[in-house]
Parts: sequence; C-alpha cells; structure tokens
Amino acid sequence: MTTDAVDISEKFGLFSEHWSPKLVARLNDYEVKVVKIKGDFVWHTHEDTDELFLVMEGRLTIQLRDRDVTLGPGQLFVVPRGVEHCPTADEEVKAVLLEPAGVVNTGDAGGSLTAVVEAV
Amino acid sequence: MTTDAVDISEKFGLFSEHWSPKLVARLNDYEVKVVKIKGDFVWHTHEDTDELFLVMEGRLTIQLRDRDVTLGPGQLFVVPRGVEHCPTADEEVKAVLLEPAGVVNTGDAGGSLTAVVEAV
Repeated sequence: MTTDAVDISEKFGLFSEHWSPKLVARLNDYEVKVVKIKGDFVWHTHEDTDELFLVMEGRLTIQLRDRDVTLGPGQLFVVPRGVEHCPTADEEVKAVLLEPAGVVNTGDAGGSLTAVVEAV
Repeated sequence: MTTDAVDISEKFGLFSEHWSPKLVARLNDYEVKVVKIKGDFVWHTHEDTDELFLVMEGRLTIQLRDRDVTLGPGQLFVVPRGVEHCPTADEEVKAVLLEPAGVVNTGDAGGSLTAVVEAV
C-alpha cells in the first residue's frame, strides 16, 4: 500500500545507473518504476504483458522491428505484449515504466542488462 | 492494442470540461486517462482497486479523511483501494489517471459528476 506522495524528479536524484529500474509506487499488482536510459538496450519481448514508457526528460527511441517510436518529455508509448523492442537513447533519458510486478526488464532475452528491481 | 505514441499535452488541448476523464492509452486491462480538474469533486471510495493520480500541471489536493495529500507537477499518489477520498483544486489541474478499465470516477458515490469515459 502506497501512502505517500512520490516526487518523480526527486527519485531520479537518488541513483545514477542506467537500465536499472527503481520501484517508486505500487498500483494493485502493477509497479511504477523510474529508469535512467542511455545507449542501447537489448532486443527483447514480453510475451505476457504490455509495457508503458512515459518520458520525463530527454528523447527516447523505442525501436520496433517495423519502425521506430520516438518520445520526448510528456509523451508515452505502450509496447504491446509480444512485440519485440529495443530502447535506445543517445543522451540520458529519464522515464517512468509501468507494468505488472515481476516483469523482467530484458524479457525473453536475459543477459547482463537484466536488473533486480529495488525500491528507491 | 496501442500502437501510437501519445503526447499528453496535445490530448489536454482536445477537451475543456472538468472531471471528465478521457482515455488515451490501454495497458493490458488498465486504462491511462487524462483529466482536467477544478473545484471540488465528491467524496467517494473505490472498493476494488487502487487509483493513481499523476499531476502534469497545477496543484491538486487529494483530501483523505485523516489528511490531505497535495501534488504538483511530476508528483504522483496512489489512493489505496477502500480509502475514501475527494480531489479538489482551486485552479485548473491537468492530471493523468491510471486504473483498471471500467472504474467509475465517482466510485460508490455516484451522482451528477459520474462520467462516461471516451477516448480523446
């Protein structure tokens, strides 16, 4: 149960690493996470869930196999379940992620960028 | 299935009424809505679900029976299920709502502020 207001900017000040989502709130069985993004992630798929990206700062490109989706501040995109994607950003992006608890950031791909989600 | 990027600011330009959430994206069985808030809502409870408020512009007070939670831009709050609440704002607030599809804005209270959610 979340009982405090969450200041998203403040949360971004509490960590520096890229590609490591931090839990900031729960909504039923969903998790609200913040993440700093820079460089290329890995191509991966979440077979069982959609995944929402909301950009707070910077410019994020979500590569899909048939096109790129580019998001600036105040823009969001929902990657549909089963759709392979690869986020990338030339400069650091601050984004909010929303998805069910337990979703692994690298989906079916695994590998060294797989992160354990901790609260911040 | 949502396949387009959503510009939240742009969505706020497409309607003017207060207390009438507009659907902008779906995430699994959840809905992302935008809402303009001004004045006092009604005290109500969602017995079966948490409800997330994220403020984009303005200052929103979510009155609870034991305290007030005030949110500015970039701040979010999750009203836990079963907790009676009443949003209020002196000046217009632009906010994002996130909750399961089918949640009625006035919860158990009903009344004239009950809105039918349409996409925008």
